[in-house]
Amino acid sequence: MQKLFEYNWQVRKDWFDWCSRVDKEELVKQRTGGLGYILPTLYHIVAVEYGWICGGIQERDIDIPAFEEVASLELVQDFSARCHAELAPFVYGWSEELEDRIMVDITDEGEREPHPYGEVMRHVIAHEIHHVGQLSVWAREIGQRPVTANLIGRGLFEK
Amino acid sequence: MQKLFEYNWQVRKDWFDWCSRVDKEELVKQRTGGLGYILPTLYHIVAVEYGWICGGIQERDIDIPAFEEVASLELVQDFSARCHAELAPFVYGWSEELEDRIMVDITDEGEREPHPYGEVMRHVIAHEIHHVGQLSVWAREIGQRPVTANLIGRGLFEK
Repeated sequence: MQKLFEYNWQVRKDWFDWCSRVDKEELVKQRTGGLGYILPTLYHIVAVEYGWICGGIQERDIDIPAFEEVASLELVQDFSARCHAELAPFVYGWSEELEDRIMVDITDEGEREPHPYGEVMRHVIAHEIHHVGQLSVWAREIGQRPVTANLIGRGLFEK
Repeated sequence: MQKLFEYNWQVRKDWFDWCSRVDKEELVKQRTGGLGYILPTLYHIVAVEYGWICGGIQERDIDIPAFEEVASLELVQDFSARCHAELAPFVYGWSEELEDRIMVDITDEGEREPHPYGEVMRHVIAHEIHHVGQLSVWAREIGQRPVTANLIGRGLFEK
């Protein structure tokens, strides 16, 4: 489980670096698909990971700023770093016995939806990779080479 | 490990169904980013999963047709079904003790690169999710609603 989170965190960092090398306007220019903008997509990835793990599974009182409150590359990076510091211990403390524990999500419609922790964690993993796939298309649209999505070759499995 | 493969296979099936509802020309029309075409992306996802698992890890003599040999939705679906039948038993037989076994990949440059099985399996998982993110942008470009990428709510964890 940890390795796929580490992969996402490494790729996210690479995208933040990528963002720092392109025109700021490109990061908030409207595009087709997904959330429709590069920087709000990175914000959304962070908010969703933090929301499910710290808010959902850990049932902590969390404060997720609106995008408008962190609407610059630096502020989204800070937001990501803060969330990461709070949620990484849970990810590194993950063990098989947590798989089947149940959290109850309250949906936007007020419904109570039970989910095994294992399902939530994999949802968060897939969620980030999916949105990053969208970033890769938008990168090419602005004539830039996207961050590589390869998991192999990142040194994640070196001992 | 199995759950993320099952997620990918379910999403892939949903994309095949989605493809059957759009104009055939849209599936092979050139687009920006990734492999640049919808149907070749689905073919590529299948070929990469099959290549790493059956060819790489299992070291079987495998035959991967060129895209041109399977260049229709039906033929890519058949190719996917054939590969799935061959590789699913390995995925379902996966256990923790396989994590650190090493396969040696021969790169296009003829280099020998060792990879733990666990790294290869996660690479394959992330690879498909990433490319599917690209499909979701292209779907919106042609005015269609993409397949949902949500892992939660697919019934993957129901007992």
